[in-house]
Amino acid sequence: MHAPLLDPRIIAVPAVDHSHEPELRARLDGKAKPPGSLGRLEDLAVQLGLIWHPAPPRAERAAVFIFAGDHGFAADRVSPYPASVTRAMVEAYLADCAGVNVLAKAAATEVRIVDGGIDAEMPPHPRLIDRKIRRGTRNARHEPAMTHQEAAQAITAAAELVREDIAGGLDIVAIGEMGIGNTTSAALITHALTSSPIVDCVGRGAGMDDAGVAHKRAIVEQAAARAQPTAPLDVLAEFGGFDIAMMAGAVLGAASSRRPVVIDGFIASAAALLAVRLQPAARDYCVFSHRSAERGHRVLLDAMQASPYLDLGLRLGEGTGALMTVPLLRAAAGILNDLAALSDVLAGRIGPYA
Amino acid sequence: MHAPLLDPRIIAVPAVDHSHEPELRARLDGKAKPPGSLGRLEDLAVQLGLIWHPAPPRAERAAVFIFAGDHGFAADRVSPYPASVTRAMVEAYLADCAGVNVLAKAAATEVRIVDGGIDAEMPPHPRLIDRKIRRGTRNARHEPAMTHQEAAQAITAAAELVREDIAGGLDIVAIGEMGIGNTTSAALITHALTSSPIVDCVGRGAGMDDAGVAHKRAIVEQAAARAQPTAPLDVLAEFGGFDIAMMAGAVLGAASSRRPVVIDGFIASAAALLAVRLQPAARDYCVFSHRSAERGHRVLLDAMQASPYLDLGLRLGEGTGALMTVPLLRAAAGILNDLAALSDVLAGRIGPYA
Repeated sequence: MHAPLLDPRIIAVPAVDHSHEPELRARLDGKAKPPGSLGRLEDLAVQLGLIWHPAPPRAERAAVFIFAGDHGFAADRVSPYPASVTRAMVEAYLADCAGVNVLAKAAATEVRIVDGGIDAEMPPHPRLIDRKIRRGTRNARHEPAMTHQEAAQAITAAAELVREDIAGGLDIVAIGEMGIGNTTSAALITHALTSSPIVDCVGRGAGMDDAGVAHKRAIVEQAAARAQPTAPLDVLAEFGGFDIAMMAGAVLGAASSRRPVVIDGFIASAAALLAVRLQPAARDYCVFSHRSAERGHRVLLDAMQASPYLDLGLRLGEGTGALMTVPLLRAAAGILNDLAALSDVLAGRIGPYA
Repeated sequence: MHAPLLDPRIIAVPAVDHSHEPELRARLDGKAKPPGSLGRLEDLAVQLGLIWHPAPPRAERAAVFIFAGDHGFAADRVSPYPASVTRAMVEAYLADCAGVNVLAKAAATEVRIVDGGIDAEMPPHPRLIDRKIRRGTRNARHEPAMTHQEAAQAITAAAELVREDIAGGLDIVAIGEMGIGNTTSAALITHALTSSPIVDCVGRGAGMDDAGVAHKRAIVEQAAARAQPTAPLDVLAEFGGFDIAMMAGAVLGAASSRRPVVIDGFIASAAALLAVRLQPAARDYCVFSHRSAERGHRVLLDAMQASPYLDLGLRLGEGTGALMTVPLLRAAAGILNDLAALSDVLAGRIGPYA
């Protein structure tokens, strides 16, 4: 499959114009604070300023999209948890009592739960967004995880969801996932897109011990021996993950609508790299939130020259690292929009007695 | 001056009972997530759990206290900014357009501005809390920055403010400061309390160049040659800062009321070390927010065996790093209180279809 199969609207990402960066830096340097004293928040402010230019960045309404899907790999015991946990966790999200819900509340962020391919018939629920492509991917150790058609459908469905939400007033998109086996898919995608050795791409996932990691690596090696795709959509179709396909679509949906998209950890970063390979202009809309404890994350961050903001040892997924970064975006936008100029402060032109 | 001069209520800090840590860790391990997968947020959850034990931690209402005071050192040009900037910035805080205001909004945190010793007559303002001890400290290069009586008065005033706010329902105290010259005071306090070489305690502050840092170091050396106090209240009186004294008081006020206190960067950490030397039990109530770019911060963090959560290159002060940590406290409390047990999720005992 090739990119033309995708809706041109989600591929039409306007390039960020970096020529405005000096003027944004100068504006920050003129604020009522020592130049550079807000450190990386100033880098983030510049990124938001570029994305929104010439409008001031908005960072009020944020939503985290959790894309859930099952993986054929789960049958190969690549996770300490059975595939049925994907569905159980999604039910916990809907009951508002999982990690994503708790952290979303702390970050004043809305939650969207999307069934992209859970291997179960999910009863309808007002907060479950049904975009199921299929009940789980095929086992990529033996065959392509999904067809090219399914891959395009997943990307497009997620991009459309995000674009509609942005059209409705959403300022910040955050992405996360749930899918038992998805660090195995992400490891293969990382290997295929970066040519990094498999050993650097495979980690403990949800908590495999050394023997488990060795087993998982063997599974990855078998899949990588079966197929060696390089084009991003071929990589996605071979090694799959409807969760990952949809996160890639969400990145394109946000970028094509000129909104920042906060990338969670390892698996979300694999999706981001897919999106960036499909459309390099999407890179400048990605805010890389945290450095995951999962081994392959470093490879992906290096491939996108990304320096995450947080390093809290998180490895849960569910958008949790992205959520903890949302307040930083709000701060960064506020620095650019609402922090007074030092010259005004020193001249007494602002202030309660002015 | 000795500790008995202080109000016994603010020194009466109940020790946190670490024997409950295993039970808190076990509870976190039973949550619907891989054990340990929320990384340092789990450490923070344990700290909050211990502070509040046996009650569940609350983390709704947060306030940042900014203590402002001038320093006699400012006459020695230890900052690129003149002393008058202290007052000007406080006016910006009251006008709601400075760094602390912007970041407080992003972190859903209330702001309290306290005049602890600004070298200006401040007209009354409904949001300026007047606890002025004196118009600025004396120049510690020549004489003690404050009397023992002034030091005790500053500590007590801040502790009382914080204790009243907590009695009114505040869950989280965050501390920050404004005071031109205060990194010089903090460097001397760091040197005196830790015996670390002066060169490791003196940094660029608000942005001194190499020559400026050398000059500042010479000033610090003269003050350190004049007096070599070691007891915490002697150190405070000699090297001062009403801002620093009040932050130390705020730490004691929070700890004596059994609430967490989020420590900002270098200067706030110097105050925290003073508080901890006055009352070692206060240490367990301190949440060290971020690793400041200011040189001496590492010395203080090491002295308190503290590992901050954020490393964003911040060096503004004004409580900005503490504010960016407040959402992490809310997340940590939520993890302990609201995240479902994995056994309940797997058994289908929770969820929208349960």
